[in-house]
Amino acid sequence: MNRLFALLWIALLTGCAAPPLRGTGDLGLVIERASGQVTLVDTSRREPYARIGGFGDLSHASVVYSRDGRYAYVFGRDGGLTKVDMLTARIVRRVLQSGNAIGGSISQDGRIVVAQNYTPGGIKAFDAETLELLSEVPAEYAPGSFSKVVGLADLSGNRFAYALFDGGEIWVSDFSDPRRPRTQRYPAGLQPYDGLVTPDGRYYLAGLFGEDGVALLDTWQPEQGSRRILANYGRGQEKLPVFKMPHLRGWSLAQGNAYLPAIGRHEVLVVSGSNWREVGRIKVKGQPVFVIARPDGRQVWVNYAFPDNGWVEVIDTLTGQVVRTLEPGKAILHMEFTPRGEQVWISARDDDKVLIYDTATFARIGEFTAQAPSGIFFTSRAGRTGF
Amino acid sequence: MNRLFALLWIALLTGCAAPPLRGTGDLGLVIERASGQVTLVDTSRREPYARIGGFGDLSHASVVYSRDGRYAYVFGRDGGLTKVDMLTARIVRRVLQSGNAIGGSISQDGRIVVAQNYTPGGIKAFDAETLELLSEVPAEYAPGSFSKVVGLADLSGNRFAYALFDGGEIWVSDFSDPRRPRTQRYPAGLQPYDGLVTPDGRYYLAGLFGEDGVALLDTWQPEQGSRRILANYGRGQEKLPVFKMPHLRGWSLAQGNAYLPAIGRHEVLVVSGSNWREVGRIKVKGQPVFVIARPDGRQVWVNYAFPDNGWVEVIDTLTGQVVRTLEPGKAILHMEFTPRGEQVWISARDDDKVLIYDTATFARIGEFTAQAPSGIFFTSRAGRTGF
Repeated sequence: MNRLFALLWIALLTGCAAPPLRGTGDLGLVIERASGQVTLVDTSRREPYARIGGFGDLSHASVVYSRDGRYAYVFGRDGGLTKVDMLTARIVRRVLQSGNAIGGSISQDGRIVVAQNYTPGGIKAFDAETLELLSEVPAEYAPGSFSKVVGLADLSGNRFAYALFDGGEIWVSDFSDPRRPRTQRYPAGLQPYDGLVTPDGRYYLAGLFGEDGVALLDTWQPEQGSRRILANYGRGQEKLPVFKMPHLRGWSLAQGNAYLPAIGRHEVLVVSGSNWREVGRIKVKGQPVFVIARPDGRQVWVNYAFPDNGWVEVIDTLTGQVVRTLEPGKAILHMEFTPRGEQVWISARDDDKVLIYDTATFARIGEFTAQAPSGIFFTSRAGRTGF
Repeated sequence: MNRLFALLWIALLTGCAAPPLRGTGDLGLVIERASGQVTLVDTSRREPYARIGGFGDLSHASVVYSRDGRYAYVFGRDGGLTKVDMLTARIVRRVLQSGNAIGGSISQDGRIVVAQNYTPGGIKAFDAETLELLSEVPAEYAPGSFSKVVGLADLSGNRFAYALFDGGEIWVSDFSDPRRPRTQRYPAGLQPYDGLVTPDGRYYLAGLFGEDGVALLDTWQPEQGSRRILANYGRGQEKLPVFKMPHLRGWSLAQGNAYLPAIGRHEVLVVSGSNWREVGRIKVKGQPVFVIARPDGRQVWVNYAFPDNGWVEVIDTLTGQVVRTLEPGKAILHMEFTPRGEQVWISARDDDKVLIYDTATFARIGEFTAQAPSGIFFTSRAGRTGF
């Protein structure tokens, strides 16, 4: 009897020690890259609720979410792909899928997680449930020549677009049959270094490091091939000193225009989202890194490369003016909006802090300590394309 | 000892009988209006997982979600406001907030749920946690004259826009201080019968029953006042027979254009989203009711009023052509896309079925029985404006 009693007691403690039920729509994950940790956060309470270690090298780490919002897939710089349960705050699977990787994506149906790799160059597709390897596409752009892969983005129909830095091409791989991907190739230009897909999933853009201009592919009409836009976008004839090549993921579309960081200049460029011609330039305090629109498109928030990385500026898209200049902390690395845009969360790496602002009043409405925080990723990304 | 044992056993059975942990990002709710029930569904498994009764009159019922995706707020026709826990599949709160109501909305910060009422005309604000009444705005447009309220929509800054059918006005109430709302009034026209806010939360549009045209308010610049657009939109000089006034919520924005149901005609109108001028008309099989864009804007799905309510047509926005005609079942009432658009769920009231289609192949990939299903609402609405 005592034994049964003890067993029951254990069952009670373990079975019922399960975390309380909760929705996952207001959760998120902050990368703490120096320590290989992540902090899980709740945007309703505006506070962290768990911290988990064991992720390896998290520099440039990024995150995508399962379609139910329960699991985060963390892509590490060392090729680690880690599946985190946001409810139990535990790592449920982890694979070292390559030696040198940067980022990944999840298919439209949520069943396939794809990682992009530098070495060996290519992409690999994993079962989102088990992290079993399903297939890979080596980035062999010429016999025996493999390219670093950059700018991976999900498209409709379980397709993925990405760019080959060494190959100078855009590839689109269709994983409708996840074990037998089919790939189409399009010319891009010299050394594409990053890519993005527009929020509607239609246009894939690859920024070029080796020359000026941006390669564009209309993925609704790929048979028309890629074309070049923004002929002057890049480092230009003068070869300006560039402190950090801005991510293309730092571009935004708002109110029909694209807002993008000028390279090497203290400017945000405004480009028509329909014909991709420049329609304006906004002077800002530094070389922009992320130029991120609030979900409604009314505001665009901008952070900067060193030595101006303590500033954040807010552009009002209605007037095209900077309406607020903030100094949230030291080394501002990333900004993430809540899905309806009432809050923005900002990582200040060298202050070991995450700061929370009300986007209507610009008041600081919260903050907490995190070790050298970089990327911030909310579960609302699960429902969006191109994240 | 036996007593402690029994208590432990009960604790084990009850405490541990809690529903399993799960994400809420892939859940939804189907209204079964004839029986006052709702069915809870899972879009990953593509099946229902619970059915709950006790909702009263669910004709024209609509649903919004808490920001964590855990709770659904169901607005019934009889003024019932019911809070449902999507995880435990239980009703957690229910108030009868008026005698005659139609729909509601939730604030940007997720803290205030607002219901719109016919009788007595006005809106009421409730605490999203407790459903405690916080404040109300009676729709008294002239001394002693109260109007039915229609077209309630959430705006940024915890504001709500709505239209007064009898008062012929658009009102915007600011609930920044939830117990002391402040209201601005704008002229609309004769008998506004419904309203919508554009997906970016910027423009509020009110359709007019008493005259042709649509009233538009730029909520980013409300000081400019309302103006009239689409002067020919309505029943027209000929006073065509109209089988059902289409909901304005059935309008869509896709690729810079608005797609909207012509009134009394077998046409979908295409209107520029920037200057609101008509740019095209697409001939369809019946009088459109809902004209709903797939989240990427590539497709627009259309259903029809009686006697054509067995058809659904799909318009390709790239070519402006109907590319597929489906006959999903009898009395198609509503359609809801999964957040990334790979599936659409369709209610066929008179077949007592919900049908699930793959939007790329148009294949039927699932179906289940529901009693006279009408509205379908997925939790992804929690992260969006104007739902």
